[in-house]
Amino acid sequence: MVEIETSILSKNDAYAATNRARLAALGTLALNLVSSPGSGKTTLLCKTVSALMGRHPVAVIEGDQQTANDADRIRATGAPAIQVNTGKGCHLDAHMVGHAIEHLSPTPGGVLFIENVGNLVCPAAFDLGEATKIAILSVTEGEDKPLKYPDMFAAAGLVILNKVDLAPHCDIDMDLYETNARRVNPGVEVIRLSARTGEGMAAWLNWIEVQRAAHATAAAAQ
Amino acid sequence: MVEIETSILSKNDAYAATNRARLAALGTLALNLVSSPGSGKTTLLCKTVSALMGRHPVAVIEGDQQTANDADRIRATGAPAIQVNTGKGCHLDAHMVGHAIEHLSPTPGGVLFIENVGNLVCPAAFDLGEATKIAILSVTEGEDKPLKYPDMFAAAGLVILNKVDLAPHCDIDMDLYETNARRVNPGVEVIRLSARTGEGMAAWLNWIEVQRAAHATAAAAQ
Repeated sequence: MVEIETSILSKNDAYAATNRARLAALGTLALNLVSSPGSGKTTLLCKTVSALMGRHPVAVIEGDQQTANDADRIRATGAPAIQVNTGKGCHLDAHMVGHAIEHLSPTPGGVLFIENVGNLVCPAAFDLGEATKIAILSVTEGEDKPLKYPDMFAAAGLVILNKVDLAPHCDIDMDLYETNARRVNPGVEVIRLSARTGEGMAAWLNWIEVQRAAHATAAAAQ
Repeated sequence: MVEIETSILSKNDAYAATNRARLAALGTLALNLVSSPGSGKTTLLCKTVSALMGRHPVAVIEGDQQTANDADRIRATGAPAIQVNTGKGCHLDAHMVGHAIEHLSPTPGGVLFIENVGNLVCPAAFDLGEATKIAILSVTEGEDKPLKYPDMFAAAGLVILNKVDLAPHCDIDMDLYETNARRVNPGVEVIRLSARTGEGMAAWLNWIEVQRAAHATAAAAQ
């Protein structure tokens, strides 16, 4: 089994390197959003895309086992989106994402969001060619999740603690979420956010803007 | 890839058949609890185990990528529990569960709970030898989840809609959760429950009692 896994992953990594080179040439910031099902990724994305549109080119790749619901929700904001259905599959891979990028042909200097299949395990191992994996955790899920699913939180360049509006109704400790995330990923930035109320959206949009500008500048300098 | 998957699954199915025969001989009801991370499986299990203990023998197998947190929580109720850490793995398999059953040696006529790794995708394909898969969904996750992860909800013999105490704080429609679960699994029973407040626990405990009695009777008749 280990050999088979290694061979699948090295094939994936080759596709991921091609995607990364292509996105770098475009100066496009690609963000891979990973989480449990139901952490609020799509609602966050809809609000984020609406806030960014008119300022920068935005495009979205949506991964799910079934349905085109999420791509439909994104397209309702006016942004281009493509749905990838994985069927039995539990994660997006770099080959699927490469085809989706071709199909979308992102405008240079913008942001490409990739919403992975809701799964805190398998997507951790698959590089899609993104700049950063962003792990999203809902406050309803429990503070121990970074410790129980450490690979995903170790792989993340940013953690979003979402649905903070529900915190007063749950028996949870928001500081402990951050402490546990940093036990598996020391120093990782954590943004507390509610996509529903808008709390924390400014910090998140600012984080994106800083990353986007760096990518666009690096491409222009080449 | 398809051939490899078939070979892994048929190996798993052989182990599952052995587990199932062993559990049938004991008259032990085995329930495989599957869900996203953070749907409240462990809290529900702690309350359930506490309610059943003293009436019937109870034992628990806990699956997680890392940590022994969940088995520790179960043992605090006084019930025997064993933790299986899957490491990189995204689901329990029947071989792991077979070893755990040997280790626990369940008392005849009781209930064995198997809490799977939090993952709405991969555990759907792996029979552990259980009597029934129970899919648990938190009301915070969104009504579209049965449609987006149909394999799991199609495989379930019972759906628990958990954390109903949070429903008034979320923009959700509880009837739509049930409608969507039955779109992929017509006629499936759905129990609305809050492990935190105790709402719905009586219906769930009654469901277990009916199943347990049927298993114990079948074993006694052999």
